[in-house]
Amino acid sequence: MTDVVALLRAALGDAVVTDPAALEALRSDKSGQRTAAPPLALVAARTVEHVQAALRIAHELRVPVVPRGAGTGLSGGAMAGAGELVISTAAMTRILSIDEADQLAVVEPGVLNGALNRELAPRGLRWAPDPASREISTVGGNIATNAGGLLCAKYGVTREAVRALDVVLADGTLLSTGHRTVKGVTGLDLTALLIGSEGTLGIIVGATLALTPVPAGVVATIGVTFPSVEEAAAAAAAITAARIRPAVMEIIDPVALAAILRHLGMPDRAPGSAHLLVQTDGAAAEQEAADALAIIAAHGGDAAMTTDPEEGERLLAVRRAMHPAMEALGPVLIEDVAVPRSRLAEMFAAIRAIGERYSMPIPTVAHAGDGNLHPNLVYAGDEVPDVVWQAAGEVFEAALALGGTLTGEHGVGTLKRRWLAAELGDEQVALQRRIKEAFDPRGILSPGRAI
Amino acid sequence: MTDVVALLRAALGDAVVTDPAALEALRSDKSGQRTAAPPLALVAARTVEHVQAALRIAHELRVPVVPRGAGTGLSGGAMAGAGELVISTAAMTRILSIDEADQLAVVEPGVLNGALNRELAPRGLRWAPDPASREISTVGGNIATNAGGLLCAKYGVTREAVRALDVVLADGTLLSTGHRTVKGVTGLDLTALLIGSEGTLGIIVGATLALTPVPAGVVATIGVTFPSVEEAAAAAAAITAARIRPAVMEIIDPVALAAILRHLGMPDRAPGSAHLLVQTDGAAAEQEAADALAIIAAHGGDAAMTTDPEEGERLLAVRRAMHPAMEALGPVLIEDVAVPRSRLAEMFAAIRAIGERYSMPIPTVAHAGDGNLHPNLVYAGDEVPDVVWQAAGEVFEAALALGGTLTGEHGVGTLKRRWLAAELGDEQVALQRRIKEAFDPRGILSPGRAI
Repeated sequence: MTDVVALLRAALGDAVVTDPAALEALRSDKSGQRTAAPPLALVAARTVEHVQAALRIAHELRVPVVPRGAGTGLSGGAMAGAGELVISTAAMTRILSIDEADQLAVVEPGVLNGALNRELAPRGLRWAPDPASREISTVGGNIATNAGGLLCAKYGVTREAVRALDVVLADGTLLSTGHRTVKGVTGLDLTALLIGSEGTLGIIVGATLALTPVPAGVVATIGVTFPSVEEAAAAAAAITAARIRPAVMEIIDPVALAAILRHLGMPDRAPGSAHLLVQTDGAAAEQEAADALAIIAAHGGDAAMTTDPEEGERLLAVRRAMHPAMEALGPVLIEDVAVPRSRLAEMFAAIRAIGERYSMPIPTVAHAGDGNLHPNLVYAGDEVPDVVWQAAGEVFEAALALGGTLTGEHGVGTLKRRWLAAELGDEQVALQRRIKEAFDPRGILSPGRAI
Repeated sequence: MTDVVALLRAALGDAVVTDPAALEALRSDKSGQRTAAPPLALVAARTVEHVQAALRIAHELRVPVVPRGAGTGLSGGAMAGAGELVISTAAMTRILSIDEADQLAVVEPGVLNGALNRELAPRGLRWAPDPASREISTVGGNIATNAGGLLCAKYGVTREAVRALDVVLADGTLLSTGHRTVKGVTGLDLTALLIGSEGTLGIIVGATLALTPVPAGVVATIGVTFPSVEEAAAAAAAITAARIRPAVMEIIDPVALAAILRHLGMPDRAPGSAHLLVQTDGAAAEQEAADALAIIAAHGGDAAMTTDPEEGERLLAVRRAMHPAMEALGPVLIEDVAVPRSRLAEMFAAIRAIGERYSMPIPTVAHAGDGNLHPNLVYAGDEVPDVVWQAAGEVFEAALALGGTLTGEHGVGTLKRRWLAAELGDEQVALQRRIKEAFDPRGILSPGRAI
């Protein structure tokens, strides 16, 4: 393997990093997991040519490559192990152009989602994808995982916000897919295929992003306590059924709510209480909020509503404290199932039953507008215990039985690969692998991950 | 080839059609073109099993297959010729379920877009894709071509309105891709890849569609005459730049406008006049219309505005008469280029210059909200004259030079294939063909079409 590093160094100079501390950091992502040993080297690419040169060498020598952005993934896809080469695009952070007339931005992959949106805000524009990690995750990583977030039910997922990609294939070929135009149907849509491909098909080195106007006018925020999560879920379903389109609609289940209140030093609510958070925006914001409040009252919710931004932030604080509250409890395996919106109450019930069966409370939050739930499996020690994997497996089986999916927005990575065929079926998995071969015949990109 | 037909008949009975008149009709689509000879047979599938059985036989015997819906395509993709087998899903017209809570419909591919939307309307829901052909085109065909329409700038193209597909692969394997959930990132997104693949990867036999609420409240319609198409395009660009999001924004160039007015028996306007049509909807409809009117006045437009539905339909009538007006002139080759929205005025100028160079007026309409133009090349006789192909080629080159694309919504089919590599590049074309091989190793599906 010294050959590889020597070749990389000859081609790439100081972009090749073998400092043990730097390599050590590449063993993990934000999933809380770690590989058994560090990778052999890191290419900290600063240019497209760096990515091409590194891949040409890796392809020639059949060295497995793990593409990496900011390493904020939750499914273990970017964790690198022994014998693997990491190619990071985190240092490619330039915003190359912002076109207000066509509402487009052309960016390098390493720019942080939050940094990009701060550049766009004064122009009244935004890039809609809003994963919870937006302040620390890269646009390239958002694209590679088809990242979701809180706003997706109304404003779409990452796929709908990308027009064109520059991607380096496994052999170093640079390809440009897609178009700057709103519409375009020339050939197969490789842009759509690359989005969410988790580094298995190529390394994204540039992106043309579709921007949207920041909604004008007031934003209405509603915080509600319900006696039970079933009532919260029923109210959320009724809001959707009434054709109201909230920008944000989040449910916090009783286990999560109790942990968050404890973490924030706030008083307990009645046992079994659940929390619903609704935010409406755009021209109909106030009317939609009034309509939602009537539905919430009819479902037994105790609501507070505001159009004051600061007060709204205070209502959001409970939801924002979820991650820190969980991290305070110990290492966490975060599941990411999604079910049809109308099955949310059933999925909450299934998670509670699994938690009781395993004597393992499973705090859960849900993006109720799109049926995406995050059950948090808290454990002790360095490795995920088998019993936690078993409980996670039962959560996934329950989601599938309700017409759902293994992962709504985090991706398969390494942690969810064991359940891939259960959702896709063996024939589709085989087809997906043939498609990967069309991009990467030697199988060097993200081996053992995603598909 | 009698072997093939005999085998098909043994497996499929009366679903196999060899009636000469029926086969004759399969030589053309709505592009105005025809193949040199009829196909060998038609399988008029009524069930998924029919499609599977037909493909198993075709795969075994390596018979080329042309999938077909209602045959309303404009790019020659569904025209079938000598030695080819047509598999039609036009008779699979059932709406299997409409789920109001989850805003989903599960349908067979042959249901007409218009028929589906008439079922949905009483529920306050719609399937957003609205190609001009919606009354005669199938949902399956809309999906196979990623159909566009008038509403795309605000409401998206077909890709954003499909959750899951059932597709039969070339060897007869039935595959289910995607999910009923709003979000889902398990594995590569084959649903997105299949949408717009023009029958090259498989035959769509079922679809789970994402429905959206019909916008509530008034619809405001604005019809405007401008002294020139440049001013119309500048006004449209300014409307977009002002963050107004019209549901419909169409430009009719002077050549098209004159032909339409003549066709409708309406009085001429001043030479060089162009038409702009704007429709706003949703909670901000009236405010957006007022803002648009101010911009239109500042750009020298002479506008009429209404919120009366009947009056609005009258304003739309000019745009709706485009197709009939063109057909009255003779056979038409309809181009379908798209450019970034801000380049619309330049593209109109380029089309006019090409028309002057070839002494061939090129009536053009544009979906101004998304930069998609339809230049109509009218000719005489049965075949497209070489000079028309040359002019069409120059139109495409001009679009590409402005950062545009060969086809915004009609697809490549057979008619635009000659320009495919000019847009995608040889390396991407080769990759697209390797992907096709992963689905269809014997190359029997839609050979010589799309990619």
